Formats: sequence, structure tokens, C-alpha cells
Amino acid sequence: MELNKDLKILIVGLGLLGGSYAKALTSAGYTVNAITRRESTVNYALEHKMIARGTTEIDKDLISGSDIIVFSLYPHVFTDWIKNYGNIIKPGTLVTDVTGVKGCVVREIQDMLPDGVEFIAAHPMAGRESSGIEYSDDRIFKGANYIVVPTEKNTPRGVEICRALGETLGFSDISVLSPEKHDEMIAFLSQLTHCIAVSLMCACDAPDLERYTGDSFRDLTRIANINDEMWSELFLLNRQALLKEMDSYRECFDKLYTGIKNGDREAIRSMMRLSSERRRKFDKKKVTEK
Amino acid sequence: MELNKDLKILIVGLGLLGGSYAKALTSAGYTVNAITRRESTVNYALEHKMIARGTTEIDKDLISGSDIIVFSLYPHVFTDWIKNYGNIIKPGTLVTDVTGVKGCVVREIQDMLPDGVEFIAAHPMAGRESSGIEYSDDRIFKGANYIVVPTEKNTPRGVEICRALGETLGFSDISVLSPEKHDEMIAFLSQLTHCIAVSLMCACDAPDLERYTGDSFRDLTRIANINDEMWSELFLLNRQALLKEMDSYRECFDKLYTGIKNGDREAIRSMMRLSSERRRKFDKKKVTEK
Repeated sequence: MELNKDLKILIVGLGLLGGSYAKALTSAGYTVNAITRRESTVNYALEHKMIARGTTEIDKDLISGSDIIVFSLYPHVFTDWIKNYGNIIKPGTLVTDVTGVKGCVVREIQDMLPDGVEFIAAHPMAGRESSGIEYSDDRIFKGANYIVVPTEKNTPRGVEICRALGETLGFSDISVLSPEKHDEMIAFLSQLTHCIAVSLMCACDAPDLERYTGDSFRDLTRIANINDEMWSELFLLNRQALLKEMDSYRECFDKLYTGIKNGDREAIRSMMRLSSERRRKFDKKKVTEK
Repeated sequence: MELNKDLKILIVGLGLLGGSYAKALTSAGYTVNAITRRESTVNYALEHKMIARGTTEIDKDLISGSDIIVFSLYPHVFTDWIKNYGNIIKPGTLVTDVTGVKGCVVREIQDMLPDGVEFIAAHPMAGRESSGIEYSDDRIFKGANYIVVPTEKNTPRGVEICRALGETLGFSDISVLSPEKHDEMIAFLSQLTHCIAVSLMCACDAPDLERYTGDSFRDLTRIANINDEMWSELFLLNRQALLKEMDSYRECFDKLYTGIKNGDREAIRSMMRLSSERRRKFDKKKVTEK
């Protein structure tokens, strides 16, 4: 199987990401079908020509007639789904996902799937503060990163197809990480940032703050408007890695605190110089991508 | 004196903010002159028609011939300037500034100025990660906040003119705070956010992070590329207020840490709900302003 336009792609879960996948893949010329929880979501997707067919049922023909299935569900909903209906998926199908943690999910899913069904995990590093199909937008993939997360059970062909899917979706940089490396990385880059934004927003309740703020606070707390159901699950599924990153961040924060308390200007400035130097790498990237 | 186009405005210090003020005020039809440190900056400003006249000298005629003088300098450079040359400013002149801390600056400046010269402090809540006149851009004021910071020595007329200046510059929301309230607010909204971004950037040196990141990390660390000379001075000038805000933020961060460590999902979710609710206020604002 190569990635070609005769393939039938099934998306399970038409939320913000599932919906954005549907838009991108339909635009690219693929036949995209969907299974999702709510009838209203199916109707929305059909009306907006995001999918060819959609249903809220476990439609065996739709499932077994798919070449690629993308799961865009909360982690525990995903594993439950595979537990209950994974046996319907026909051998030769490639299964992938968008789940934000991998270590505790990937091997479990691989073990539950029938022989001949390959599950290759992926993490699209794109999203929005708002959830739901009505916020879906395939432009969020432009300039964004996509991580393919194979295990020892995956085939080079599976990795290649997953990578090609990332390219088709419009991602700018596609890389490959093991589940463990992925979870470490995500603990730092994504989960810790959400912890920081939530903590900062909880830390002050002075009135009218929004009248005095500059963009730095706005940008830093954008993600403090957070889907608490999903993110609390992701935090707890990656608890050890996240606590480790929280510890090392707090160590730096405390070091800066001590520098300020002691009036040690050189200690403060040397941290600022290090942070500036490191941050510039992220800028360059962004400019190149635009 | 009302704010009218016959007024001569002098800007001392043509950096990012001083340059952006010059652009905005020249566009609005005022005669804008400037004193700045480097000859090359004067030339840049003249070539780009940002100012009518400019010099690197302490030009007594230029200073005493100005109706409004805006100081856009580092705090200690500002106080040194007033100490050395404040006596040149003629009575009737309104002096204002853009300094990021107020408590330790405003009253000192007011005490040093000659009788009849009113200093009314202001803080434009706009900026960029890059410094220097070549990054100046008066569009940074659109949608941004401007804070007028009077003391008991200021007149209602001084406050009104300063407010009108903020409107002319293009700010969307103009408010008035005492120096002490301003410094508390800024400790939380601006200085603490910079401490967080710097600490986060210092916390991890894994290679190729930029290949795996999403926008949340990019947005949160935008300000980690920081002018260490200026910000270390601002931090230390507002040390007590900043340490207090750092303490209360760390308390929230630790609470979240404990929730994650104990697997207490409800504790995590209730913080996330609070942060989401509070953050939405900032969104609405932004939307209205655009």
C-alpha cells in the first residue's frame, strides 16, 4: 500500500483535530469517512463537505472497508474502542492516532489489534484552545511539527506511510521519536507549559488585570483556557516524566528567585543571556517556515 | 496647554519605544525632535522621516523650546539625565516617560525637576523582543494598554494631557494607577511572566527541541529572548513586589504539582477550570479591540 488517492481513510472522532484532518485529507482528494459520537457532528461535517460518509454507529462495513484509520479520541476512549471493536479492523489496514501521550498507549493498542493490522502512532503538534469540529481548521498544520512514534513492532513501510500522511496534511517538519523520548519531550514542551500557564492564571485575582496587561502575559496564558477533561488525563498518563520536568523547571525558577532576592545582577543576567541564546533557535525556525 | 499640533515634542532616547513614539506622533502631525546617544540613530530617524530634528548633543535650545518631553531611557539613565540637565527644561513643559517601574523613579524625578515643570509618568504596555530604532513600529500600540501613573503632585491637566497623548499614539485602553499599584500590577503581569519564560528556557537543553515543539511553547517563551541589561535593572528596582508575586505563583505551581503527584484528578481539574474562566476575560478584550 502506498499513499494514493484511491485509499479510503476513516477518521474516528471528529473533534478539533479529527475535523482538521478530515478537511485537509478531503481537500487533498482522498475519500474520507468518519465515525463520531454525535449526530450533529456528522451533519456538520457532511454539510461542510469535510467527509464523504459519516455515522455515529459502529458500522462494520465502513470500518473493514477502510485502508487507513485515524483515531482522534481521548486516550482512554481510544483504548476502550480498540478493546471493544478492534477485531472488526481487517488485516492490511494501517491504524494511526493523534494521542498526546504515547508510552502507556502505543504498545497496549498494538497488542490488542488483530494480526496484520499495523498501528503506527503519531503526534501532530498543532491545536487550539477551543475544542470541537466547528473550530477545525487545516491551516493549523502549516508551519507545525509532526512526530511519528514507532515501536519495534512497526515496519519501515508503516513509518513511511505515516510520514507521508503528515506531509499530505501540510506539516512542515516531520520527525521520528520512540514512545519514551516522545513522552519526555512532550512533558517539557507541552505539558509543563500548560502547567505554568494554569498556575500563573490561578495566582492572581486582582480585578481588571486585562486593562493593564501587555502581550507577554496574553501570549503566555493563551493555553490557560484549557480542556480540563483531556489535559488532566494526559498529565496523569505521563505523570513521572511531567513531575521530572516540573522539578527541573522549578530549580531554574528558584535560582532566578535567589538571584533577585540577593540583588545578584550578574546571576540574573547570565540566565537571561542563556535563555535568549536558546530561544533564538526557535525564532529562526519559525521564520524559515513562513 | 492643550494637546494640539503646534506643540513641539522632544523624545529623549530613540530606541524601540522612543522610535515608535516618534513615528506615531510625526504621522499624527506633531513636530517631533529627538536627542539620542548615537549619530547613526539620528540619521536613521531623519532618513525615515520619523523626526524633524535630531542630535546627540544636550542642545539647550531644543530642550527649552519643547512643550512636551518624552523620556524613553533605561531607569538609571533617565534619573542621571534629569540630575544633570533637568534644570534646562523650562517651566510650563510637560515631561513624561515610558519607564517600566514607577515607585522608585517617579517621585525622585518630580523632586529633581525645576518648579513649574510637571512630570507625569506613563507606561505604554507595548514592546517587542528586539530593541533598537530599526524595530520601531507604531502599530504595536494598536489594541494595547496605556497606564497613566500620577502622584499627589500631578495636576488634573497633566493627567488629561498624558491621557490624550496615549490616545494620539493609538492605544486602545487608557487607565490610571498610583505608582505603587502600577508596580504591583507590573510585577505580576510583566516581570513575573519574563521570569517564567527565562526559567523555562533555562530548564532544558535537549537538542532539536525546536523540531518537536508546538505553538504553546513558542508563545510562552517568545519573551525569553530578553534584553538582559534593561530587564535585570527593572527586576531589581521592583524587587519586593516581584518576589511577592513569584511566591504566590510558586504556591499555585506547587499545588498543581501535588495534585499531579497524588493523582488527584479533581484538584487538577478545578485549577484548570479556574484558569480557563479567568483567561476568557482576556480573550474577549482582545476580540473587542481588533
